[in-house]
Amino acid sequence: MKKKVVIVGGVAGGASAAARLRRLNEQAEIILIERGGYISYANCGLPYYIGDVIAERDNLFVQTPHGLRTRYNIEVRTRHEVLKINRHQKLIEVKELVSGRVYQETYDVLLLSPGAAPIRPPIPGLDGDNVFTLRDVTDTDRIKAFLRDRQPRQALVVGAGFIGLEIAENLVAAGLDVALVEMAARVLPRNLDPEMAAPLHLHLRAHGVNLYLQTALSAVEQKDGRNWALLSNGERIPYDLAVIAVGAAPEARLAKEAGLELGTNGAIRVNASFQTSDPHIYAVGDAIEVESGITGEKTYVPLAGPANRQGRLAADAICGRPVKYEGAIGTAIVKVFALAAGTVGLTEDFLKHSGQKYLAAIVHPLSHAGYYPGATPLDIKLLFTPEGRILGAQVVGAQNVDKTLDVIAAIMKTGGTVDDLAALELAYAPPFSSAKNPVNIAGYVAGNIIRGDLPVVSWDQVLDQENPDFLLLDVRTKSQFAAGALDGALNIPLAELRQRLHELPKEKEIIVYCTVGLTSYLATRLLIQNGFKARNLSGGWRTLKAIREDRRLTAAAGNR
Amino acid sequence: MKKKVVIVGGVAGGASAAARLRRLNEQAEIILIERGGYISYANCGLPYYIGDVIAERDNLFVQTPHGLRTRYNIEVRTRHEVLKINRHQKLIEVKELVSGRVYQETYDVLLLSPGAAPIRPPIPGLDGDNVFTLRDVTDTDRIKAFLRDRQPRQALVVGAGFIGLEIAENLVAAGLDVALVEMAARVLPRNLDPEMAAPLHLHLRAHGVNLYLQTALSAVEQKDGRNWALLSNGERIPYDLAVIAVGAAPEARLAKEAGLELGTNGAIRVNASFQTSDPHIYAVGDAIEVESGITGEKTYVPLAGPANRQGRLAADAICGRPVKYEGAIGTAIVKVFALAAGTVGLTEDFLKHSGQKYLAAIVHPLSHAGYYPGATPLDIKLLFTPEGRILGAQVVGAQNVDKTLDVIAAIMKTGGTVDDLAALELAYAPPFSSAKNPVNIAGYVAGNIIRGDLPVVSWDQVLDQENPDFLLLDVRTKSQFAAGALDGALNIPLAELRQRLHELPKEKEIIVYCTVGLTSYLATRLLIQNGFKARNLSGGWRTLKAIREDRRLTAAAGNR
Repeated sequence: MKKKVVIVGGVAGGASAAARLRRLNEQAEIILIERGGYISYANCGLPYYIGDVIAERDNLFVQTPHGLRTRYNIEVRTRHEVLKINRHQKLIEVKELVSGRVYQETYDVLLLSPGAAPIRPPIPGLDGDNVFTLRDVTDTDRIKAFLRDRQPRQALVVGAGFIGLEIAENLVAAGLDVALVEMAARVLPRNLDPEMAAPLHLHLRAHGVNLYLQTALSAVEQKDGRNWALLSNGERIPYDLAVIAVGAAPEARLAKEAGLELGTNGAIRVNASFQTSDPHIYAVGDAIEVESGITGEKTYVPLAGPANRQGRLAADAICGRPVKYEGAIGTAIVKVFALAAGTVGLTEDFLKHSGQKYLAAIVHPLSHAGYYPGATPLDIKLLFTPEGRILGAQVVGAQNVDKTLDVIAAIMKTGGTVDDLAALELAYAPPFSSAKNPVNIAGYVAGNIIRGDLPVVSWDQVLDQENPDFLLLDVRTKSQFAAGALDGALNIPLAELRQRLHELPKEKEIIVYCTVGLTSYLATRLLIQNGFKARNLSGGWRTLKAIREDRRLTAAAGNR
Repeated sequence: MKKKVVIVGGVAGGASAAARLRRLNEQAEIILIERGGYISYANCGLPYYIGDVIAERDNLFVQTPHGLRTRYNIEVRTRHEVLKINRHQKLIEVKELVSGRVYQETYDVLLLSPGAAPIRPPIPGLDGDNVFTLRDVTDTDRIKAFLRDRQPRQALVVGAGFIGLEIAENLVAAGLDVALVEMAARVLPRNLDPEMAAPLHLHLRAHGVNLYLQTALSAVEQKDGRNWALLSNGERIPYDLAVIAVGAAPEARLAKEAGLELGTNGAIRVNASFQTSDPHIYAVGDAIEVESGITGEKTYVPLAGPANRQGRLAADAICGRPVKYEGAIGTAIVKVFALAAGTVGLTEDFLKHSGQKYLAAIVHPLSHAGYYPGATPLDIKLLFTPEGRILGAQVVGAQNVDKTLDVIAAIMKTGGTVDDLAALELAYAPPFSSAKNPVNIAGYVAGNIIRGDLPVVSWDQVLDQENPDFLLLDVRTKSQFAAGALDGALNIPLAELRQRLHELPKEKEIIVYCTVGLTSYLATRLLIQNGFKARNLSGGWRTLKAIREDRRLTAAAGNR
């Protein structure tokens, strides 16, 4: 069957759909219309080209219009903008941006992959030629040219989501002083809980990023020949270049004007085979609403991996194959200087507010066997139902963050439990892992919590108590304790605990901690079996120390 | 309940069981008896201590007897050997090796974790003080002392399994010339298929290892003051030091003499809660038979990860908790200089011989986004049933081998399919992965093969044909083709293929290839839809080139 498929948007989802369509149907007429100057480019690589980590601009292009034409027989029209969809006649109105000519194009099937547009906060004056957002190659070229021609010294990055963090790092790499301003109390606020963001804050500050948290950009002004940002904390900081990275909104204008149904966040509503409310129109990528692979609820997950998969599946559906998209769980990762931070599923913050029942485990295993050189600790947080189904995970560390997260994400995608994590047989040799892989450890600890073997408290139940009615027991060695401990904690090293049980109260709750939570787990088991009311501090001293240090530096920054 | 549990063997499974027992039961009497001088040491780290990669001997010890006593209240007896089990009286006869004293010890529960002993081939003369096996710290100390005191120059390593490969690498690191002799036609013969071993062969030779394949050690002799190894190929090579790493056999003597049931490979038979045929005696680790998590058949999987898990689960069972071991799928990895090789489940070689129906996919995706610096190719082989259930995987490469393997192993453990691999949402940012993760790509290609979208042939159906009745079509660019191609192949670059279809025969089968298999996939789809009989060469030129180069070097080595 010779179908005419017109695809609107030539990056990620659109390009992936076009290629798959051709592989499945050599006869179809495929037209790819892209408003910008480029198709199928390395969207996620753009910040790294700004930082010169990616040195060659040519490397940003995965496919060229020429390649798509010769290898795939796909007609590519860049700098063409679709103005309007006429659903009744199945045609679109297209504007050739260079000439201004407007023409009509018919379709049998229309696939919308317009993506999402960066949000610009409505701040007067925030529109100079030194203010940027980063969406495409053209934006990137503008920033690169500005860096080259104007030699800016001070950068303002607004928004500490994934892109804001990547831009901040790459502007530091490009030699600039960077202020990173985030309205929320932490970076990646929708993806990380406070104790998991804390090590990133410390790391960003250690790399010279001036981090402003719980701070909004209130206004900008020009004065004394410079640009100044006025912050909600009253500070006034100069900037030569500003990048706004406060999020993106689905580009649903075309769909909306055509009367297609919209959903969450104003994104285009589609069914499980990516059909919009018009069965001849499909949509994929950052412009659509998806089903959460965890809650089953409608949500918005603008990520490159799902966009690519959606494009492929939409092509299958257009070719008449049965397709049922499984929804998205939102696995994502970001490099932050020498660290990586990864996230999948729901955060504790979200779970708390949604009122769902959940449990949490925090562990700090080493990236590989401690006796083999170069191992570094991981911070892993696992969220799960009281029955053990995994709801979310967060991983921060210098190595194997991606691996750890991917394995957990794989089990989440199959609807697995924390016991599945414990049972996994993962590749072990000393350079790569430990006989008990970090994922196994997270699974075991979560299982212990579920079965009541390991009652836990979280850091905020300890750190923010005015009149604690519990005893804090530090079971690390005397020298570890001396090097820094919680105020008011009693130190009984585990090795002495069995002999010193008489020093402890039977009535009062005892909160046990050690460096990462293993020694205190042993102590907690010991105490419980001896009739004490003991609970383990989740994440241990490592988590608490990061939060305390982060609070100290954040407070200091606020008083600057 | 105060139980007396005696554990025989203080490494991996035994140590893990002891610790878990104490955590579950503060009252139990736990005695850990170990024949050797050390417990709970880093078994898998020993080769790296020989190569000075692990510099500090102390780092090899995960737990000490003192630590187990003070932290876990476990009585540890090293250099004590259990001579005999008296099941009727529930006691064992123990010899204190230092004094020679023999005594009896009663038990309520006995847990056997004696491990496996290195196999010594019965070659006369292969027993000098310069001939070693590597099992424990004492063996390691002997090798280290020999290296230090005798300054050997030439090493003979017999057996190219996991340990043989690690020892070969570490002896090279220690400055020796290394000959690695393997009876099979390839390294890791039970874990890798020929095309997956080929890149390792090339890499070993490139790092100066003299690799002898399909070669046995026939005899050894002393002559002219040197030790000589006589090989089955007629060669005679000198050695100053020999390490025998031809495998290990379960240490089941105690169990056998006590009349316990044995199984596969002479290993101790246990039920799903690790009980032997005597319900008061449990067994775990390298001494036991396990169920294959893939076939359900009894098998033998001596690996550290499963041993640790088994120890933990046996402790649960001993404490009366319900335990059902899920069997082992045999995930394993080895570092080979700058490469890693990983494996899980069944090989194609095994599947062929077992007569099971299977399909195979070979892909070569990059370790992370190609536009971000430092990406290296992965070789991934996936084996699966015609219905898509994953039977095995092999991964070779310089980066992300462990991650790729772990994700596949996770899906295998949950009984998943290749479509599950395709659907996974894995962490993507350019430094870590691609929008289509290597695992997704393997899953998509496997799905294409299953659904008949991508008919494939394997390298051996092409390379070893005397009178091929197919046309070889190379769809790479002219310059790629000119740089090296298969004999007799016709070159039509994909970009020209649609215009040059008339040059191809409609009746003859066309086998299409490119560098890694993506371009040829497009070409295969194009040809099939135009009525040609086309199949894609799995793994492409990259796989073929490695095999051809490997064969050339192996033949050259044989003629030395």
